[in-house]
Amino acid sequence: MDETSRVGIIGSGSWATAIAKMLMNNVYELNWYFRNPKHIKKFRKDGRNPNYLTSVDFDVNNIHFYTDINHIVEDSDIIILAIPSAFLKKTLNELTVPLKGKFVASAVKGLVAEDNMIVGTYLNEICDVPLDNIGIITGPCHAEEVALERLSYLTIACLDVKKGRTFASFLDCSYIKTSVSDDIYGTEYSAVLKNIIAIASGICHGMGYGDNFQAVLISNGIQEIKRFVDTVHPITRDIKSSAYLGDLLVTGYSQFSRNRMFGTMLGKGYSVKYAQMEMLMIAEGYYAVKSIKEINEKYKVNMPITDAVYNIIYERISPSIEIRLLTENLR
Amino acid sequence: MDETSRVGIIGSGSWATAIAKMLMNNVYELNWYFRNPKHIKKFRKDGRNPNYLTSVDFDVNNIHFYTDINHIVEDSDIIILAIPSAFLKKTLNELTVPLKGKFVASAVKGLVAEDNMIVGTYLNEICDVPLDNIGIITGPCHAEEVALERLSYLTIACLDVKKGRTFASFLDCSYIKTSVSDDIYGTEYSAVLKNIIAIASGICHGMGYGDNFQAVLISNGIQEIKRFVDTVHPITRDIKSSAYLGDLLVTGYSQFSRNRMFGTMLGKGYSVKYAQMEMLMIAEGYYAVKSIKEINEKYKVNMPITDAVYNIIYERISPSIEIRLLTENLR
Repeated sequence: MDETSRVGIIGSGSWATAIAKMLMNNVYELNWYFRNPKHIKKFRKDGRNPNYLTSVDFDVNNIHFYTDINHIVEDSDIIILAIPSAFLKKTLNELTVPLKGKFVASAVKGLVAEDNMIVGTYLNEICDVPLDNIGIITGPCHAEEVALERLSYLTIACLDVKKGRTFASFLDCSYIKTSVSDDIYGTEYSAVLKNIIAIASGICHGMGYGDNFQAVLISNGIQEIKRFVDTVHPITRDIKSSAYLGDLLVTGYSQFSRNRMFGTMLGKGYSVKYAQMEMLMIAEGYYAVKSIKEINEKYKVNMPITDAVYNIIYERISPSIEIRLLTENLR
Repeated sequence: MDETSRVGIIGSGSWATAIAKMLMNNVYELNWYFRNPKHIKKFRKDGRNPNYLTSVDFDVNNIHFYTDINHIVEDSDIIILAIPSAFLKKTLNELTVPLKGKFVASAVKGLVAEDNMIVGTYLNEICDVPLDNIGIITGPCHAEEVALERLSYLTIACLDVKKGRTFASFLDCSYIKTSVSDDIYGTEYSAVLKNIIAIASGICHGMGYGDNFQAVLISNGIQEIKRFVDTVHPITRDIKSSAYLGDLLVTGYSQFSRNRMFGTMLGKGYSVKYAQMEMLMIAEGYYAVKSIKEINEKYKVNMPITDAVYNIIYERISPSIEIRLLTENLR
């Protein structure tokens, strides 16, 4: 991997678009996969993604658009996956060309629910991508603030720190600062778990709990995340780093987080179905909490917040019962 | 100390009033010191503190008001100090009766600036209160949410955990849950430092930095707090607990924090003087940053956020210069 590497993005949502914006400062040409050819046509005409971060201008002369996932993989040395986790397996199943030999970075922030696997593990075990060629892009980073060029920090996790650094340099620019970590498992699990804590935060907000309680919930949330990642992948890490705590904060304290919004609706008494319909999209944490609950059957980590969110969403237990129980378990 | 102990509060602000409200659930009679007799007269007439948390009703028949600090100390077994740190030394200097023999709890959240001492140390070294008889009341807890009876968690730090637990039971009620800690130094320093981080958070907010950056700043802030307290008082503590991280979160993320508001005005370009006049009160962090800077000359802990806030307030260096430098030191 070097500055001549060809980069391809798979995904057309707001996070994919934010990453494309960062890359365009550093790579001369970009490959970009959209499922829908109509969106490409409009993008080419307007110089903007028609559906996400619509204020960001792109020089479309330097973008190669693809609607065939095999073609973009063939034409790229580095693949960035930036699609909702719910579509990941289906999308990768369309591949007939191998991912092996590519550097594959995940910006997914969700699990492959059908297999209860984080994306890095799925890429390694199912797609045969060597661990050294897997990168994880993690926040704290709302795409909307990247669009506004507000200073943001990203962490790139990669077992091969040199590769991680080279890949990070593609994203670095005046408003993006990057760090490199070797914790590919911990950063991914933490990015997944923070969505569950954000749902809990939303539920409590929706029920009328205040800032004092939110501070306690988030403090207990990062402790819960640490317990889990330290059990699943026990290496030395500082959970107070931006990649873990920062990512939790930007999600748990944001009115714009889909996961928090989904939780807020549940806390206000809406049904799971209604909350999903109203939002027109499904919060990542909705799937994540089920997978984490199943994965944790093996590890048996004490996860009172995750348990409460699971019970509210999947066991249909009233938030007032679950959150009251939860308040007894926090300190 | 037992349930028959007579409790006296010194201070009449919002935090003193919130603590009085908690106590009235558990103690039959309360001693309460106000500097201004006119305020007592109005309080007696209305059943409410005329200036703070004015929506909270008190049964004034069960409150003994004092305007003489020596009288309230004589009549109380437990003294709760809840006045701004700037007035603490002056107030305690009025004492002619000894504090020794009393259990003294600090709810001050500031340093004795003239001596660069946290309150616990001042009580011990200057007022001869034995360490075992000192308690620290720490958040995360906005007084305004106590007034609304929103669920909040307090930590009581006391070297004598049994006394700590008894004292905590005076505050426990349906909307207050308490924990006990033995970290009297760490909780106090952390409560002081969080106000400095909150000023930094306000400055950056005032300058237009967004949520992504705030998450990085707060993550780095708790790391800075940990470095300092672990150096000054190296015992085993979990800095992610509510008493440390939670307290930082409730202050750093709150629009209602005076420290954050003070910082926001500085970030928007107001002078220190003007910001103080506009707020009609001085944020605790204004004094704290000077004391901590001086205390840290001995310990030499790496404190980039504290340094930046100090330089902006006391060296009159422009926030744009200081914060740009700071962004290079965060990750």
